[in-house]
Amino acid sequence: MSGFTPPSLLSSPTLLFCLPFSLWPQKLHRWPQFRSQPAAGILERLNAGEIVIGDGGFVFALEKRGYVKAGPWTPEAAVTHPEAVRQLHREFLRAGANVMQAFTFYASDDKLENRGQALKITGAQVNEAACDLAREVANEGDGLVAGGVSQTPSYLSCKSEMEVKAIFKKQLDVFVKKNVDFLIAEYFEHVEEAEWAVQVLKTSGKPVAASLCIGPEGDMHGVSPAECAVRLVKAGAQIVGVNCHFDPLTCVKTVKMMKEGVEKAGLKAHYMVQPLAYHTPDCNCQGFIDLPEFPFALEPRILTRWDMHQYAREAYNAGILYIGGCCGYEPYHIRAVSEELAPERGFLPAASEKHGMWGAGLEMHTKPWVRARSRREYWENIRPASGRPKCPSLSTPESWGVTKGHSDLLQHKEATSTQEMKHVLEKQKKVKSSA
Amino acid sequence: MSGFTPPSLLSSPTLLFCLPFSLWPQKLHRWPQFRSQPAAGILERLNAGEIVIGDGGFVFALEKRGYVKAGPWTPEAAVTHPEAVRQLHREFLRAGANVMQAFTFYASDDKLENRGQALKITGAQVNEAACDLAREVANEGDGLVAGGVSQTPSYLSCKSEMEVKAIFKKQLDVFVKKNVDFLIAEYFEHVEEAEWAVQVLKTSGKPVAASLCIGPEGDMHGVSPAECAVRLVKAGAQIVGVNCHFDPLTCVKTVKMMKEGVEKAGLKAHYMVQPLAYHTPDCNCQGFIDLPEFPFALEPRILTRWDMHQYAREAYNAGILYIGGCCGYEPYHIRAVSEELAPERGFLPAASEKHGMWGAGLEMHTKPWVRARSRREYWENIRPASGRPKCPSLSTPESWGVTKGHSDLLQHKEATSTQEMKHVLEKQKKVKSSA
Amino acid sequence: MSGFTPPSLLSSPTLLFCLPFSLWPQKLHRWPQFRSQPAAGILERLNAGEIVIGDGGFVFALEKRGYVKAGPWTPEAAVTHPEAVRQLHREFLRAGANVMQAFTFYASDDKLENRGQALKITGAQVNEAACDLAREVANEGDGLVAGGVSQTPSYLSCKSEMEVKAIFKKQLDVFVKKNVDFLIAEYFEHVEEAEWAVQVLKTSGKPVAASLCIGPEGDMHGVSPAECAVRLVKAGAQIVGVNCHFDPLTCVKTVKMMKEGVEKAGLKAHYMVQPLAYHTPDCNCQGFIDLPEFPFALEPRILTRWDMHQYAREAYNAGILYIGGCCGYEPYHIRAVSEELAPERGFLPAASEKHGMWGAGLEMHTKPWVRARSRREYWENIRPASGRPKCPSLSTPESWGVTKGHSDLLQHKEATSTQEMKHVLEKQKKVKSSA
Amino acid sequence: MSGFTPPSLLSSPTLLFCLPFSLWPQKLHRWPQFRSQPAAGILERLNAGEIVIGDGGFVFALEKRGYVKAGPWTPEAAVTHPEAVRQLHREFLRAGANVMQAFTFYASDDKLENRGQALKITGAQVNEAACDLAREVANEGDGLVAGGVSQTPSYLSCKSEMEVKAIFKKQLDVFVKKNVDFLIAEYFEHVEEAEWAVQVLKTSGKPVAASLCIGPEGDMHGVSPAECAVRLVKAGAQIVGVNCHFDPLTCVKTVKMMKEGVEKAGLKAHYMVQPLAYHTPDCNCQGFIDLPEFPFALEPRILTRWDMHQYAREAYNAGILYIGGCCGYEPYHIRAVSEELAPERGFLPAASEKHGMWGAGLEMHTKPWVRARSRREYWENIRPASGRPKCPSLSTPESWGVTKGHSDLLQHKEATSTQEMKHVLEKQKKVKSSA
Repeated sequence: MSGFTPPSLLSSPTLLFCLPFSLWPQKLHRWPQFRSQPAAGILERLNAGEIVIGDGGFVFALEKRGYVKAGPWTPEAAVTHPEAVRQLHREFLRAGANVMQAFTFYASDDKLENRGQALKITGAQVNEAACDLAREVANEGDGLVAGGVSQTPSYLSCKSEMEVKAIFKKQLDVFVKKNVDFLIAEYFEHVEEAEWAVQVLKTSGKPVAASLCIGPEGDMHGVSPAECAVRLVKAGAQIVGVNCHFDPLTCVKTVKMMKEGVEKAGLKAHYMVQPLAYHTPDCNCQGFIDLPEFPFALEPRILTRWDMHQYAREAYNAGILYIGGCCGYEPYHIRAVSEELAPERGFLPAASEKHGMWGAGLEMHTKPWVRARSRREYWENIRPASGRPKCPSLSTPESWGVTKGHSDLLQHKEATSTQEMKHVLEKQKKVKSSA
Repeated sequence: MSGFTPPSLLSSPTLLFCLPFSLWPQKLHRWPQFRSQPAAGILERLNAGEIVIGDGGFVFALEKRGYVKAGPWTPEAAVTHPEAVRQLHREFLRAGANVMQAFTFYASDDKLENRGQALKITGAQVNEAACDLAREVANEGDGLVAGGVSQTPSYLSCKSEMEVKAIFKKQLDVFVKKNVDFLIAEYFEHVEEAEWAVQVLKTSGKPVAASLCIGPEGDMHGVSPAECAVRLVKAGAQIVGVNCHFDPLTCVKTVKMMKEGVEKAGLKAHYMVQPLAYHTPDCNCQGFIDLPEFPFALEPRILTRWDMHQYAREAYNAGILYIGGCCGYEPYHIRAVSEELAPERGFLPAASEKHGMWGAGLEMHTKPWVRARSRREYWENIRPASGRPKCPSLSTPESWGVTKGHSDLLQHKEATSTQEMKHVLEKQKKVKSSA
Repeated sequence: MSGFTPPSLLSSPTLLFCLPFSLWPQKLHRWPQFRSQPAAGILERLNAGEIVIGDGGFVFALEKRGYVKAGPWTPEAAVTHPEAVRQLHREFLRAGANVMQAFTFYASDDKLENRGQALKITGAQVNEAACDLAREVANEGDGLVAGGVSQTPSYLSCKSEMEVKAIFKKQLDVFVKKNVDFLIAEYFEHVEEAEWAVQVLKTSGKPVAASLCIGPEGDMHGVSPAECAVRLVKAGAQIVGVNCHFDPLTCVKTVKMMKEGVEKAGLKAHYMVQPLAYHTPDCNCQGFIDLPEFPFALEPRILTRWDMHQYAREAYNAGILYIGGCCGYEPYHIRAVSEELAPERGFLPAASEKHGMWGAGLEMHTKPWVRARSRREYWENIRPASGRPKCPSLSTPESWGVTKGHSDLLQHKEATSTQEMKHVLEKQKKVKSSA
Repeated sequence: MSGFTPPSLLSSPTLLFCLPFSLWPQKLHRWPQFRSQPAAGILERLNAGEIVIGDGGFVFALEKRGYVKAGPWTPEAAVTHPEAVRQLHREFLRAGANVMQAFTFYASDDKLENRGQALKITGAQVNEAACDLAREVANEGDGLVAGGVSQTPSYLSCKSEMEVKAIFKKQLDVFVKKNVDFLIAEYFEHVEEAEWAVQVLKTSGKPVAASLCIGPEGDMHGVSPAECAVRLVKAGAQIVGVNCHFDPLTCVKTVKMMKEGVEKAGLKAHYMVQPLAYHTPDCNCQGFIDLPEFPFALEPRILTRWDMHQYAREAYNAGILYIGGCCGYEPYHIRAVSEELAPERGFLPAASEKHGMWGAGLEMHTKPWVRARSRREYWENIRPASGRPKCPSLSTPESWGVTKGHSDLLQHKEATSTQEMKHVLEKQKKVKSSA
């Protein structure tokens, strides 16, 4: 395998990618997926201007495959069903992802035993198993392993800074022991909690990325994306950005605001973006959680692979180098990101052998009218129908207006009581009728 | 593990299923997934009035995971990436499927070497590997293994009955050698070719199911569903029905027409249905292949799990016992079918431990307004938005009006030529402008 | 004024109409609106193969102008606000209509005093005033005056044939006295009542047209359009067709079914169609009355003038010569019908001086991008957005399943009682929840 | 006739308006439409906190009736078809309008002879006839007559301040001669031209209102609504606001921004709003002119009467007292504004005798399920379907980005040349392909 990049491609990638795949120079079909050099660290790659492609959303993908429970959204499957987690890692690697995020989302003890989930498997067990799986698959390519922490029920329930930091430290201890390549503090709605996380992760000496789940309106207390980014960089993050909660173009817009803030403050950082694979034009500040369709009726909003091409290009043009996905991203979405950025990266991912640029494989379809679709112009201009004529195109988000500290947000170990359910049902009815 | 079914449940399942999962009798949470009896054959089960749940669509699911190429849609991955195929079988088993269909779709030599695909792996190799994988996973539960044949490029290209039957025979030889539990002739657009397939499969002595990819308008030559069914039963099929091409409610409607035809003819049969997981109200007789969104922009049409509840109930009420899925079906769709029919079957599938009836797991969600959604009434009445305000809700199918024998449908080993591509692009332009 | 039709136009109308209006031969701009010959009767015109353009919907147009009450829909304004009725007649005449239907819809005494409407003005007064207004305006051009009767509350309430016929006779007496040019029995849901009306009207010796408000599913008792048409012709109608309740293309389809029925029965007739100006793809047999939007939220369904071009062409191609409109038709809709059929008629209507073919007047717009829209291709291909992203594109009709004889349909002179209102509200709730 | 307002109504109007009309105290049915006091001037009314209801859009309404040509949009019909103009005035008066705007829109000589319109009728003739018609109808009630000027082709073509002011002066001379009650400078896209107009109108000593056709993004040169309003007040306008180009809620939002600007500047003014009756959520700064549907495919966007209730309430709550409509407003839209504000005004308009609050007249409908709709709750919650499943809900505005001074906007007396048409068609194609 050689790292050779055909000069003709890089000199005129646009021209090339407009052609049907069958007309590409034969050698490009055999492009190596993985570079021959020894894998560099995340910061070395970004400093070199290299694109780093992230993976997709594990909790949503594994929920659909039957291994994660919507509601708690916790990753015990790393222990109980390693084959399912390993397979998903492999699919993302094959789709071109450079980062294997260990499946440690919400893997803190306070979350694992929240609301009636008995703590059958400890956070430490989950984190260890997840790191091992990520490393196993990363080694099949040139993948980097990231360990991550995310927002805690303890913070929402107004526990002290010391208590919350202790939770992050416990997870970090496993990541250090397993020697992950870098750390991510991700999915934080409040920049304050993210700062605490970054401060803890920094103690390890490893590179730290910080990613909020916010949109252009800022965090749950109204702190702007620009200010959030500055605070995270000051807390020690070398990479900042957003993930989840909003669709790709909204997330790119938000990271641009972060970048402007960081640059205006005279600071330096790298940028990352890992959005939803759902269209969310109708969301307010809390993102897709507020949509009536969350989490079990989001299907009509799923992005096509062609939406991903646009996303990858806009993210790259905005100066974002770490480009991945979150909830809703399936392997083919990441493959589309890799295909769009193939001219810059110099290679196609392994999974493209089963696709071809812009759906070139359709040249082999039995029906002539489908063969006629094996080209960029067709897919780039499609406006796909929903097949649901009795459904609207936008929804009204439920806006309960509760943030950290509100009694409805206090978490507890006990299962949700009948009394609590009655309360939330009444509130739901009230909110809906005033919408 | 016991096969015990709580009497209270069966006596009033409707009442029970309206309750949040947390209020169910504790013992139901521990319902065994698999029956304790030794697995009966497909006909024994159907004769006993037992529901048989099929699996979902492999080519579409594995295309998204990176292992199948849209266009040829062939199953070489059974040989090259067995771990991916095995994992998908497991997910469907876990979702409640009783049938593991060996991943042999389009695995005939004439298809494997069509339009420039070099025959690197033979049909026999694919069929063997696929049978082994299906059996391996079936044995992890009480699954049945089915071997299948489907329509051939040879038939479309007007080859003789003898030539087409020889292709089916070659596949059948492997199925017999691997001792599958039953056989399926599926995805046929022309009833004539399906009859030939049934006649070949019948020679094995194994049970034979026959499934066309047609809607209420009948096959590509206008033979009505009722007549198609009668002809298939007369050819020897014990189970008849439809799969692919149309959405669930359209497929159920079509099978009902088949059933009426069979009964009117004084014949007997069992019925099966394995629809798309895409809404297709705008299709004409050729189904979703004609939709402009096929195959890479179908996302907005994906059915929710709640649509599946309705489908499963209507199929069962129509007297269809073999209920599964085809393209677009992910494991969670099959789980929803299993959950809807849990009262009749007497148990929930293993994957329901990660779901709960009607999304009961949401009781454990952090946000109170999402906890308020952990109930049937909420999801049953949702009209999900597309998030795509610039897209329509229905499309105009492309109607090229070509069927078997038309020159545009003749298949060949050579890759599609530039000349051919030019021809189809011009035709596409012409068809669209007159739509 | 001359009846001269430019030969170049008739020889290649299609070519001509593709050009911007400004490029038309100057003489066509001065086309006479009205023919110079003395006005022929309705049957003479139709027998000569001449197109007869009807007017639009008075009750809906005048409801929006403030002169008709939605609910009773009765035409007292002919007496109380003659200036408003006269003006609307003039606008339709100017738009190219050949028929001035006297504003006598629902002008029977049993309807005028139904449900709490005190009979302040008698049916005879309304009918007389309406005939005078129609004649006054018809004489300003070459218009024909039609007097019409429509379905009665008495029939719905199961009154005898004799009683119902007496109602029609009372109206007919006025029409004869006022010497209208022909008679229309229109807006009948039950073919039986329409037959009674035709039998009464025939006694006058004037030409009789009969128009049902039915769709392809037939009348409220399931009598097919073909059979309805045959029965009406046998009852004595020389012109048969449909009006109201469905959109133009559905109505044209229905009249085609009528025509086939009449021809198959070896009978002869002329055909008429006067549809809604609302899109109704989601209606069942009772038409737009069942739509949840009826009658006060139909706006998003209003047809554009370009939809009218398609309608007029399809109606004409189907062999229908009497082409007009019903509820929702504003003068510009009728003008569009006249413009589409201008090549066949040989002239443009007077109101086209304020329009030009295919919006040619836009050439004079201030903004350049609007000037670019002054052409057929632009408007013919537009897919207009609703501007309502939170609304669906189709509705579920309310299906109460009540027809003639059902207690809910019995009419009375007293206002709807509180008890009755309570009853219908409960029924509405029940129907909606089971939809 | 007495001006008496029933105390019970004003003390609890909400309660009353929830009842079906038939249950209202009988006396309210006989509410006088017109007050008995001699008509006060516009400023006296506003100073007294009285609501002033404007009329609707004449050019769009009369285009549909066949008397105005889309493109030039000029009001020659005041001279050529006075009966049509008079009738429309009457309908608005009957609907509750207090202002009769003389039909003088675009009635300046430079506009009347723009782009190939020969100046057959002079601006002075049109202005005189229009004032006479407005006064005639105003005297039938207690209406005020307003004379208006609007933006000129001369300004767009970069003529001097003196030249542009001369045009306004010529129109003003007629308004003074005809002694209109007040003056409106309306439909200005550039605040500078509006200031010039106000300065001219002020010389008459009559009250002056100034209304821009801008949205929240400000005028075509980016001057904010707040700054626009301050400049107009400083130029001498006593009433400021917006009309046309955007939907009601967008217009109310814009006027609120104006009000905040004026108050922040320590100035005083009254406020007016006269929006489109089209939903325009997808517009950019130039409003509905940029929408692909403008002007001949806007039907699906037409507001219902119920949208008008919401608009009237929000406008009033925002402190706007002069509330009317512009393009798209038909008499029933203005009636709905009057009905919503009936509790505050103390009376219903004359046209409500043909409606009843919240569609109360439906109690008299023949069909029981329509009688069930005779109530506020039904209509307030309806989400009307478009009946157009192949159309999207939002469009992409054409953004040519040309403003005053751009060569494409230079106006001339000659008809648009073939060369110019070719140029704009090419530009349109280019803009669309890059959208």
